[in-house]
Amino acid sequence: MDYIDIENIYYLGPDGSNATLAMKKFLSICNIKAKNQISQKTIKSVLESIENDFSSFAVLPIENSIEGIVRETIDNLLKIKDKDIKIQGELSIPIKHLLLSKNDKVNKIKKIYSHPQALAQCSDFLYKNLPDVELIDVSSTSYAAQKVSVSDSFDIAAIANESCADIFNLNILSDDINNEKDNTTRFFILGRKNLQKNNKGKTSIIVSTKNKPGALCKVLEIFYKHDINLTYLDSRPSKKRLGEYIFLIEIEGYNYEYKIKTALEELMIYTDFIKILGSFQIYLI
Amino acid sequence: MDYIDIENIYYLGPDGSNATLAMKKFLSICNIKAKNQISQKTIKSVLESIENDFSSFAVLPIENSIEGIVRETIDNLLKIKDKDIKIQGELSIPIKHLLLSKNDKVNKIKKIYSHPQALAQCSDFLYKNLPDVELIDVSSTSYAAQKVSVSDSFDIAAIANESCADIFNLNILSDDINNEKDNTTRFFILGRKNLQKNNKGKTSIIVSTKNKPGALCKVLEIFYKHDINLTYLDSRPSKKRLGEYIFLIEIEGYNYEYKIKTALEELMIYTDFIKILGSFQIYLI
Repeated sequence: MDYIDIENIYYLGPDGSNATLAMKKFLSICNIKAKNQISQKTIKSVLESIENDFSSFAVLPIENSIEGIVRETIDNLLKIKDKDIKIQGELSIPIKHLLLSKNDKVNKIKKIYSHPQALAQCSDFLYKNLPDVELIDVSSTSYAAQKVSVSDSFDIAAIANESCADIFNLNILSDDINNEKDNTTRFFILGRKNLQKNNKGKTSIIVSTKNKPGALCKVLEIFYKHDINLTYLDSRPSKKRLGEYIFLIEIEGYNYEYKIKTALEELMIYTDFIKILGSFQIYLI
Repeated sequence: MDYIDIENIYYLGPDGSNATLAMKKFLSICNIKAKNQISQKTIKSVLESIENDFSSFAVLPIENSIEGIVRETIDNLLKIKDKDIKIQGELSIPIKHLLLSKNDKVNKIKKIYSHPQALAQCSDFLYKNLPDVELIDVSSTSYAAQKVSVSDSFDIAAIANESCADIFNLNILSDDINNEKDNTTRFFILGRKNLQKNNKGKTSIIVSTKNKPGALCKVLEIFYKHDINLTYLDSRPSKKRLGEYIFLIEIEGYNYEYKIKTALEELMIYTDFIKILGSFQIYLI
C-alpha cells in the first residue's frame, strides 16, 4: 500500500481534542505517514504553521451541526496567501460532550471550563442543573480538561469528550449533556499535496458578488443551470462596513469536471472576487 | 407630540452595555415612554420576558459588522411562539472597545473579562500587547466592567465601552483596541405594538427551502423578478442534522407593499416554512 510521507501534521490541540480524533482518522483513511503530530493553541496558528512548512498538512473544524460555521476557520482560510494550500479532504465525526471533574458530585461544581461552542451546546443541561455556575471560555475542550486535571480545585469541571476522561484522569459526572442528540462536526484537512479524489467530491469557494441587484441570485442560477447541487451557503461580513458580505459556497462535484469548470468560469462575470478553497473527497468513517 | 406608553422595556444588560445605549436611542427616536427599563442577563431571557409581558418592548443585537450575525438572537427569535411579537424597528450604532481596569498599567494585567464577540474583535491588540493574558468569557461587556469594579484584584481588566469607565469608575488603559476601525452593531426593537413605518423599510423572514436542487435559487429569483433588493442572507443549521439549513433573508421594503406581498405569496410554493420576523423602519441616529 502506498503511503503519503509528510513531515508534520498540525491540528487544534492539545491532545484529546475532537480535532485530534479527526486528525488520527484522516491519517488512517488517507494513508498519510506524518513524522510529527503537532498540536497548536489556535486555529490561526494551525494555518500559520502550514503556511511556513511545505511538507505538512493541517486539520481544522469547519462546521458543527448545532452551532453552524466555525467563523475563525473560515475567516483565517480567507487570509491564506499561498495559493497551493487547498482543502484536500473532509470528514464528519460525531461529538459527545461529558462533564469531567476531580470531584464526583455535580452539585459541588462552581466553575466550568470549555470551548464556547461546547458551552453553548450544553446550555440546556447547565441551565437546568448548574444555573449559578461560572462558565469560563477556553480555546479547546481538551485544554479545559487539562486545566481541571492540573488544578488543585475540586469545585471545577470541564466539558470535553470521553477520551479526555482517560487522558487527564477525570471522573465522568454526566455523560449525556448535549442539547441536541445529533451533534456532528465537519473537519477539513488542508495542505499542498493532493489526496485521492475518488467517490463523492465537493468544491468550496468564497465569492464576493458585484454590488448590484440580483448578483447572488445570478450566482446560484449558474449552478442550477449546470445541474450542480449547492450543499452549503453562508455569508460572512466583509469586515469593511455593515451590509457588505462575502459568501462561502459549497457545491457537489470536483472542479476538474466539465460542468463545474464551466460554471466557475461563468461565475467570474458576476463576481468581484473568487477564491477556490479546494476540491476534495468527502471521507466516511 | 404623541407618545407610545408601555409598561416595560427589556434589554441585554447590565447598565452600560451597548444594548443599553441602543435601548435609550430607540426610546427617544420612537417616542416610547416605558415605566421601567429592565436589564436581563441573556438574550434568551430578554425574549422570554416580552413573551410573558404584553405591554412591553425588547432591544437585542442582531448583527455586528465584524463578527456577523448574533446567533443567539436569531436562534431564539425562531423559537418565539406568540405571532404578534414582531421586529418593529432597526438601529445601527458604532461600537468602540476600551480596556478598563482599576490598575493604570497595561503590562500588569493577567486576566481580561468581556463578551466573546468583544474579545474576538480586539484579538489583534491582545495578541500583540497581552499574548499570555487569560481571556474570560462573560455574558456582556458591561457585566465584565462591573465584575472588574467590584473585585479586589488589580491584575484584571474588562473590555467594554466608554460609558462603563464612568459608571464603574475604572481607568482607561487603552481606548483604541478594535481590530477594524469600522465596527457597528445593528439592533432590533421587538414588541406587539406597531411603531411608525415611514421612510426606508425592511422585511426580515426565515425560510426553510424544499429539499430539492435549485430551491434557494428559486427563492432569490422571486425577489429579483419583483425588483426587490436583498440586503442580507445567512444560513443557520436546522439543528436536526448536519447539512440541513434554514435561511435568514432580509429585503428592502415593507410587507404591505404590493410587490413584497406578491413575492411572499409566491415564496410559499418553494418553501416548507416561512416566518415573517417583522417589517419595520430603519431608524438613523
